[in-house]
Amino acid sequence: MLGRSKAVGVGEALGILRSHYTPPEPGREEVSLHEALGRVLAADIISQIPLPEFPRSSMDGYAVFSADTFGASEQIPAYLKLAGEVVMGEAALHPISHGEAIAIPTGGMLPDGADAVVMLEHTQTLDAGELEIIRPVAPGENVVQPGDDIKAGEVAFTRGHMLRPQDLGALAGIGTTRVPVFKRPKLAIINTGSEIVPADRTPRPGQVRDVNSYTLAGLVRLAGAIPVLKGIFRDEYGPIREAVESAISECDAVALTGGSSVGNQDLTAKIINDLGNPGVIVHGVSVKPGKPVIIGVVGGKPVFGLPGHPVAVAVCFNLFLRPLLKEISGEIDPLEHMGISGVRVVEARMARNYSSVPGREDHLGVMLKKGDDELWAYPVLGKSGLIFTLVKAHGTTVIPADRPGIAKGEKVIVRLFD
Amino acid sequence: MLGRSKAVGVGEALGILRSHYTPPEPGREEVSLHEALGRVLAADIISQIPLPEFPRSSMDGYAVFSADTFGASEQIPAYLKLAGEVVMGEAALHPISHGEAIAIPTGGMLPDGADAVVMLEHTQTLDAGELEIIRPVAPGENVVQPGDDIKAGEVAFTRGHMLRPQDLGALAGIGTTRVPVFKRPKLAIINTGSEIVPADRTPRPGQVRDVNSYTLAGLVRLAGAIPVLKGIFRDEYGPIREAVESAISECDAVALTGGSSVGNQDLTAKIINDLGNPGVIVHGVSVKPGKPVIIGVVGGKPVFGLPGHPVAVAVCFNLFLRPLLKEISGEIDPLEHMGISGVRVVEARMARNYSSVPGREDHLGVMLKKGDDELWAYPVLGKSGLIFTLVKAHGTTVIPADRPGIAKGEKVIVRLFD
Repeated sequence: MLGRSKAVGVGEALGILRSHYTPPEPGREEVSLHEALGRVLAADIISQIPLPEFPRSSMDGYAVFSADTFGASEQIPAYLKLAGEVVMGEAALHPISHGEAIAIPTGGMLPDGADAVVMLEHTQTLDAGELEIIRPVAPGENVVQPGDDIKAGEVAFTRGHMLRPQDLGALAGIGTTRVPVFKRPKLAIINTGSEIVPADRTPRPGQVRDVNSYTLAGLVRLAGAIPVLKGIFRDEYGPIREAVESAISECDAVALTGGSSVGNQDLTAKIINDLGNPGVIVHGVSVKPGKPVIIGVVGGKPVFGLPGHPVAVAVCFNLFLRPLLKEISGEIDPLEHMGISGVRVVEARMARNYSSVPGREDHLGVMLKKGDDELWAYPVLGKSGLIFTLVKAHGTTVIPADRPGIAKGEKVIVRLFD
Repeated sequence: MLGRSKAVGVGEALGILRSHYTPPEPGREEVSLHEALGRVLAADIISQIPLPEFPRSSMDGYAVFSADTFGASEQIPAYLKLAGEVVMGEAALHPISHGEAIAIPTGGMLPDGADAVVMLEHTQTLDAGELEIIRPVAPGENVVQPGDDIKAGEVAFTRGHMLRPQDLGALAGIGTTRVPVFKRPKLAIINTGSEIVPADRTPRPGQVRDVNSYTLAGLVRLAGAIPVLKGIFRDEYGPIREAVESAISECDAVALTGGSSVGNQDLTAKIINDLGNPGVIVHGVSVKPGKPVIIGVVGGKPVFGLPGHPVAVAVCFNLFLRPLLKEISGEIDPLEHMGISGVRVVEARMARNYSSVPGREDHLGVMLKKGDDELWAYPVLGKSGLIFTLVKAHGTTVIPADRPGIAKGEKVIVRLFD
């Protein structure tokens, strides 16, 4: 598929990619719970134990036979014999007998025979080692039963679940301190452009420092994936081709960021096509900024040719690479399936008229300001290639391809930067 | 301030903490840009260079004296002599003379003398090394001037700014590859309760595995801070007091999580008071779950006594510790100053009637389900102390202290878990 094809819409581009590429089953590894935050489970986790493992009191009070309290009231209290206390972290020394009460703290293990707990507030201890009870308790009252939290043999978590802080706690609770997780996706970053020098070097006239490796690596990390920096390459066929081949064998996907000159883009497309099958599948997407984006599949892995424009790199990452990396990660996000965005959005009113190029989905950086209890979105404009426009913006808003622009005062949804 | 004081509201509790504690200036360290994602700048960053450093073409085309193109049209084109080409990453070999045009790629450095670039599309090369131009260009057209992105001496970033991916790119662009950042806040986690054993140990009857260290450490990490696990302690004065003292000298804040029995809470309060000045400042907050939370200040550092209930730990973290850690971090969040929440929220309709305890701010875990194009929030209920309620929930919704509950069908804001 050599040569320029027509630019396609964003949705169409994703569809074409999907028809040529299906993420393989991710690799697995085992990690300790302390390293498992944000990782994706590679297998269902079945609880081997019930939780709690024993009946626990949910109150400070007295463990009793509930039947001994039936009918108790302030007028006619029930009287039970105090028969010791439950010590936290230990089983009761002996079972309870009818007519007895044993002091128990919240979380304490019920003595054998006891089936309920009377709250401290509804009791009074009397001198003779006797307990006065002024309210009845039903069987099971103020008791958490074994398995109330989770039962032995129950599925605690399913494959594809991303582990949140509370999930780590729950896994610890059932004694699962090592978990099988999918390996994190690796994205290779190949920076091309004869004008680019490493950021710590002083550029000569005509040269510029590497910007995109840093932005892209940060975006990859925030997406829970691993950036693999393959380095900076001059616009020469051989070394870039070698870097792409090595990246494909080593990583799950590849992103080349390049100068936005026609020559540079042609070189990227040629290399992807030469490595082929099918090679370039999308050449140009109707999105601003980012139109010249190239999408290819080589050796069963996606290869992206992103423009060199830093803003376009960020927009293309969010449109294509972020969802792709999430898919490769093996995560099944229940919220996403409900259409809940994985990013923060706010509603704001446009502070100015903004006219957009028709036929292209326009991703506009905006700065937010608060005024009159409302948020206002100010377009952050700048010539193509500027870096600090993205720094000044708090997020982006999308003007759909079929709209000529947004009028001042119109409401827009702003996707906040991570 | 010994003994039990009355439970206070959440806002009041934060106010009391603020009146007894002001975060000190955070420590500083220097990190490389590759490690700087999410870190907070400890100083303003001033650009030492203009960006770009030289006039760059923003188009593929020809560098010209703009005056040579004035009046050019399809009917009466301008003709210029082709005088070579600009190579990417290099300065032009010689300056341009009147009547000349030099080919230039996007991003290329303008030759001395040239003040504009004619787009490729508006030109045609003729046999005799001549270029035909059919549109005029104004001075500066299609050129990014030195300093258009940022000027030398301009403040690129201010102290307190948290570094996002695009910020790393911008810093690389101005050659700042090491940055001064504030040290991350450290929260010590002290797990108390005679019933608690490490998660990898098999509990004896009456014992339970440590859950809260894992949940809390995960929450601390997501907040960009460092959890320091001080271990598990039986309900005994001496060792816990020593752990708190060591934690205070080592960390920025301390969280004890404990059993929810009265004895355990009293021990925590006593230790905080004995280490004192002022010691316990809040004992009980009108929030559900989490009422018995203790807030103290010892040695100028905040010390929290959180209940042992895992859901309460998470709720108290979000209410008190997350904002505190953010304040300690030195971050100045422009969005927060506009009232934009740092977490994802969605709107949903309550799927059931839910009645709340009046006088307490009720943080209810909810599971979301999609139905009829709308999200429905199902309360995830369970006895106190259950762990998996938090696992089943997608987020929480708050029923204010002055509301008796929420009716089925009413709209609620759900704060999604990170």
